[in-house]
Amino acid sequence: MLNFASDYIAGAHPAILKRLEETNFELLPGYGTDHYTKSAKEKIQKACGCPDADVYFLVGGTQTNATVIASVLKNYEGVISAETGHINVHEAGAVEYTGHKILTIPGHEGKIDVDELKAYIKNYYEDDNYTHMIFPGMVYISHPTEYGTLYSKAELQAIHEVCKSYDIPLFVDGARLGYGLTSPYTDVSLEDLAHNCDMFYIGGTKVGALFGEAVVFPRNNAPKQFYTMTKQHGAMLAKGWLTGLQYDVLFTDNLYFEIGKHAAAMTEKLKEIIKKYQIPVFLESPTNQQFVIIEDKKLEMLNEKVVTGYWEKYDESHTVIRFATAWSTTEENLAELDRVLGEVFA
Amino acid sequence: MLNFASDYIAGAHPAILKRLEETNFELLPGYGTDHYTKSAKEKIQKACGCPDADVYFLVGGTQTNATVIASVLKNYEGVISAETGHINVHEAGAVEYTGHKILTIPGHEGKIDVDELKAYIKNYYEDDNYTHMIFPGMVYISHPTEYGTLYSKAELQAIHEVCKSYDIPLFVDGARLGYGLTSPYTDVSLEDLAHNCDMFYIGGTKVGALFGEAVVFPRNNAPKQFYTMTKQHGAMLAKGWLTGLQYDVLFTDNLYFEIGKHAAAMTEKLKEIIKKYQIPVFLESPTNQQFVIIEDKKLEMLNEKVVTGYWEKYDESHTVIRFATAWSTTEENLAELDRVLGEVFA
Amino acid sequence: MLNFASDYIAGAHPAILKRLEETNFELLPGYGTDHYTKSAKEKIQKACGCPDADVYFLVGGTQTNATVIASVLKNYEGVISAETGHINVHEAGAVEYTGHKILTIPGHEGKIDVDELKAYIKNYYEDDNYTHMIFPGMVYISHPTEYGTLYSKAELQAIHEVCKSYDIPLFVDGARLGYGLTSPYTDVSLEDLAHNCDMFYIGGTKVGALFGEAVVFPRNNAPKQFYTMTKQHGAMLAKGWLTGLQYDVLFTDNLYFEIGKHAAAMTEKLKEIIKKYQIPVFLESPTNQQFVIIEDKKLEMLNEKVVTGYWEKYDESHTVIRFATAWSTTEENLAELDRVLGEVFA
Amino acid sequence: MLNFASDYIAGAHPAILKRLEETNFELLPGYGTDHYTKSAKEKIQKACGCPDADVYFLVGGTQTNATVIASVLKNYEGVISAETGHINVHEAGAVEYTGHKILTIPGHEGKIDVDELKAYIKNYYEDDNYTHMIFPGMVYISHPTEYGTLYSKAELQAIHEVCKSYDIPLFVDGARLGYGLTSPYTDVSLEDLAHNCDMFYIGGTKVGALFGEAVVFPRNNAPKQFYTMTKQHGAMLAKGWLTGLQYDVLFTDNLYFEIGKHAAAMTEKLKEIIKKYQIPVFLESPTNQQFVIIEDKKLEMLNEKVVTGYWEKYDESHTVIRFATAWSTTEENLAELDRVLGEVFA
Repeated sequence: MLNFASDYIAGAHPAILKRLEETNFELLPGYGTDHYTKSAKEKIQKACGCPDADVYFLVGGTQTNATVIASVLKNYEGVISAETGHINVHEAGAVEYTGHKILTIPGHEGKIDVDELKAYIKNYYEDDNYTHMIFPGMVYISHPTEYGTLYSKAELQAIHEVCKSYDIPLFVDGARLGYGLTSPYTDVSLEDLAHNCDMFYIGGTKVGALFGEAVVFPRNNAPKQFYTMTKQHGAMLAKGWLTGLQYDVLFTDNLYFEIGKHAAAMTEKLKEIIKKYQIPVFLESPTNQQFVIIEDKKLEMLNEKVVTGYWEKYDESHTVIRFATAWSTTEENLAELDRVLGEVFA
Repeated sequence: MLNFASDYIAGAHPAILKRLEETNFELLPGYGTDHYTKSAKEKIQKACGCPDADVYFLVGGTQTNATVIASVLKNYEGVISAETGHINVHEAGAVEYTGHKILTIPGHEGKIDVDELKAYIKNYYEDDNYTHMIFPGMVYISHPTEYGTLYSKAELQAIHEVCKSYDIPLFVDGARLGYGLTSPYTDVSLEDLAHNCDMFYIGGTKVGALFGEAVVFPRNNAPKQFYTMTKQHGAMLAKGWLTGLQYDVLFTDNLYFEIGKHAAAMTEKLKEIIKKYQIPVFLESPTNQQFVIIEDKKLEMLNEKVVTGYWEKYDESHTVIRFATAWSTTEENLAELDRVLGEVFA
Repeated sequence: MLNFASDYIAGAHPAILKRLEETNFELLPGYGTDHYTKSAKEKIQKACGCPDADVYFLVGGTQTNATVIASVLKNYEGVISAETGHINVHEAGAVEYTGHKILTIPGHEGKIDVDELKAYIKNYYEDDNYTHMIFPGMVYISHPTEYGTLYSKAELQAIHEVCKSYDIPLFVDGARLGYGLTSPYTDVSLEDLAHNCDMFYIGGTKVGALFGEAVVFPRNNAPKQFYTMTKQHGAMLAKGWLTGLQYDVLFTDNLYFEIGKHAAAMTEKLKEIIKKYQIPVFLESPTNQQFVIIEDKKLEMLNEKVVTGYWEKYDESHTVIRFATAWSTTEENLAELDRVLGEVFA
Repeated sequence: MLNFASDYIAGAHPAILKRLEETNFELLPGYGTDHYTKSAKEKIQKACGCPDADVYFLVGGTQTNATVIASVLKNYEGVISAETGHINVHEAGAVEYTGHKILTIPGHEGKIDVDELKAYIKNYYEDDNYTHMIFPGMVYISHPTEYGTLYSKAELQAIHEVCKSYDIPLFVDGARLGYGLTSPYTDVSLEDLAHNCDMFYIGGTKVGALFGEAVVFPRNNAPKQFYTMTKQHGAMLAKGWLTGLQYDVLFTDNLYFEIGKHAAAMTEKLKEIIKKYQIPVFLESPTNQQFVIIEDKKLEMLNEKVVTGYWEKYDESHTVIRFATAWSTTEENLAELDRVLGEVFA
């Protein structure tokens, strides 16, 4: 069935499947000690312009967020996030499960505001009782955010400056990073990101891999024994080369970025189709997730032909839904969507 | 390089890779809500003779152990395990990380003894101060154990009887279950196992899958909201069908058992080779892991040609090493090993 | 120095000290197995009109909140609280440290609103992705709240009805319960409270005891092995009778309520003094905590003579401060405060 | 009833009760910010010969162990303890509840052996898979141990040397420290202890206080924000001065040591009585706990007249019991015990 619900609805880029097949019977050591993993790390260091970066390969996003946050924070510290941050809403309390509070500040279409961040931390330290409160020990942002929005380079730098002034690391959730870096509307490159945060990950699950998230500590600043802590979190694959190999392919011949650009092109076409049928947009998103407002009756008709992502109720009779493109979206998928919308909005 | 170090040194059974490729562009819903996962669950229910079984697919062994144990135990409960149990030694404290103590009893070639188990629980409840101590809330065993040994059906039943008499669930770590069930020396079938424990898993990572562990609660006895707790533990794949599909293949046409039988046949040949060179065995193992004692000088020579698994120091000048066969072991691999050993022991 | 900063600035009611001295060399069994603890439990059961109540004595408020919440919640559950709830702000993340998320809803002078609560839970269960989110597993309120405000009996019942309709327990933090129950402005008795919630505590630390909080599960509904979990949380005193004895005194001849009434009388006098000097009140509080807005220059003068509680910045040049009365407040204290304020506001 | 079950069966030394009464209405700031706490810290620094020591006052032993261990260890670290260590047996899994594994080595009458300790750590780091295992991150010993035994100064230094060579802190549980330091059989002074470990506590609950444990980090080496972590663990009293004041009394005019000497004298008399009736001793203990083997029939008779501490079953018809003296033991208590034993062993 036609499906625009998300960007994790198809398997992997064919180049990855091909390599998995070619190497299937190469006998390899486990737990990420193989040569493919080594090669992938080097390619990522190079792509980030960070020759000293520590790079680790984990399996999924929620797992990565919890493992990184719990490994970096001290017991008395929490992580600042937008109220709408994925860690605060849709990760089944995985961060709190490790013992750490999420300290929320407002989200603006998914983004945090640098002045609100600064005020939050300042107020915290001015409170007479701050030693009875959880210390702000990390700032978490997503790029793109859960709403598909992006930070500008200036915004990113400003947030990082605040973090540095309080000696608090900035962690960027890059589950959809590929789609952010290749947006026609961004001025942030992979190098920019690496130089303006303290830890981030390059999402694979949603950007062409079967699964996998590459965590980067750009300046040799991984927490001590991070490897052991990935094991402790159940985030270490026995056949670790499976993730290493996938990233080795993604960072060969620029594939990760080519995949992103393809999705960006598909997104532009999707936006045209949405415009054609005058479907009101919920917010302007510069990346592969597009949010529109649709009458509930139309939605019912629509969902008989195409799977879309439920986002939230808009009002009594309307719903916000998500259309996502991905590395796997084809011109044919879009043509079919156009036909279906034509019928629904006839 | 020739490699007998473990059973997770090759990718996946070709039938699995083939299906991954065939279905790569079938657009599927995420998080295990797809039809392949449903089909796999039904096939596993059938194979277990447990039509009401709850079946969940997780990614790896350590993750599965921690998620199941933490979801079943109450705060005041711990899990009884052999001192040599994988959860007690080689999982980076993943169980304790979730807040639960491992209560150890002696391991006998990896197995627990039913009388020692009974005595442990009895003594616990007879202690005047038992309410100041962690309650035994689960029994954990591995089948096969970390030493490749197996419980007989009678042993399994006896342990389960003790558990039932104290209302303590029995959890069986089946990371290598396929190799246990197809051993020529076992009288325990998959149905036997399902009917003589309260939760277990059917290992995929080491038995033909790229990754994956199928957790079975045989009598509709999964903890409430186990699904959400897999998310909380970072054990839920976005592309959940990847695991479902692999198990669907493994439980079609008996593949899981055929794979096991192949490894068992390879193991018999391996044992003959070991015998041929009169290498002393460390313990008699009925499954795919064979432990031998080798002089350190010979080991050095050996490891130039073949990767083996370090187990432990035997004495000043000898080491215990592991040779493991697997679904992927070929006659050619064994022939080459024979040649290499011939040179080393010439 | 004169001190109105809080209600935990003096030792214990003399009747308690006297009994501690009288019983000092009575040799008693530890960990709350003594006869004073038994007697105190019975008196509390009677005072609550709950003959089947489970009663436990813990040491302090933060400890009690964390122990009760962690013992009642399942791993996948969080606790709903006002944003301003003590557990959410001033307990150093003690609840999250046990692995549980605090789910916040707005606070209205410290209180939650029943309709907002209902809407929160309803929305939660209507979310398509609710199984990826933390389940609401408990509702936490304070009575009095952190702002000294009180729920009416009707409000309490309405909140409890919502809780019951979703099978979610209602937990009432009663760190200052004595001052709430004896307020001239309340219609909630101890029996009312016990019958309209699922667990609560009768604060001792702030209401006449040296320390101690009496946790009540009114209908024999303590979590299994709660005793062991108090040990696990470090909340079990070796000399457990110290707390039992104090509560035995507090619940003899109505002392707990007499103490409260005394503080209520002192509060009325305090309010008159505040009025006399036309100090603007920050909010109307019916209990022993009074919040006023004071010019920063005046505050500086004031604090040379009397310790007050900093609450928050009101604006550029004003601060909100707290005056608290307590069981220990004397007429002389108030007369002195009157003199000091007379000087400051001359 | 006559009671030799433990050393926490009476209230507090009269000098403490007197001071509590004298200061009862002195209005004091909370949370340990008062002048008594300050004074107590200074006296303890002086008594330890450690002018830079960080000193914190907590409430009870289990709480102190869990708070210190969890605050010092990193996520990937565990604490080495004798199998018989209090944290491993009788603290309801409080350490594991904070996420940390206890790594056990044999206990020899409660003590660890320096060579076994060294071997354990050495083996750990020699294991090929040590990064899949919990790192030894602390050594925990008790002085006196749970069996009343003591380390010699040479033993303590040797253990500390091993710890230092691996950069692992040594933590000494001093719940009964007073009875250890004043034993006629010890060569370890408070200064010796402070200079030969990295953190320890001076037990109050069992040595003359109502409650309280004074944690000492001798060289200004408390973990960052330890104060906030005591709050997070529910270990911070609102009326913090109650503990400070008690230690201020205990460390005035050598009271803490006088109390210990008194108990030591009582112990010598107790030992004579035991000898007089030829009751076999279970082990030679140099401190206030004496363990003897008694026929079950005699024990039944005995327990009608005196409470003793159950320790463990010795064989089918005998039991090991504990007689403990304390600061509160009187000559009369011993005379009465003598009479009772006379009847039982008549």
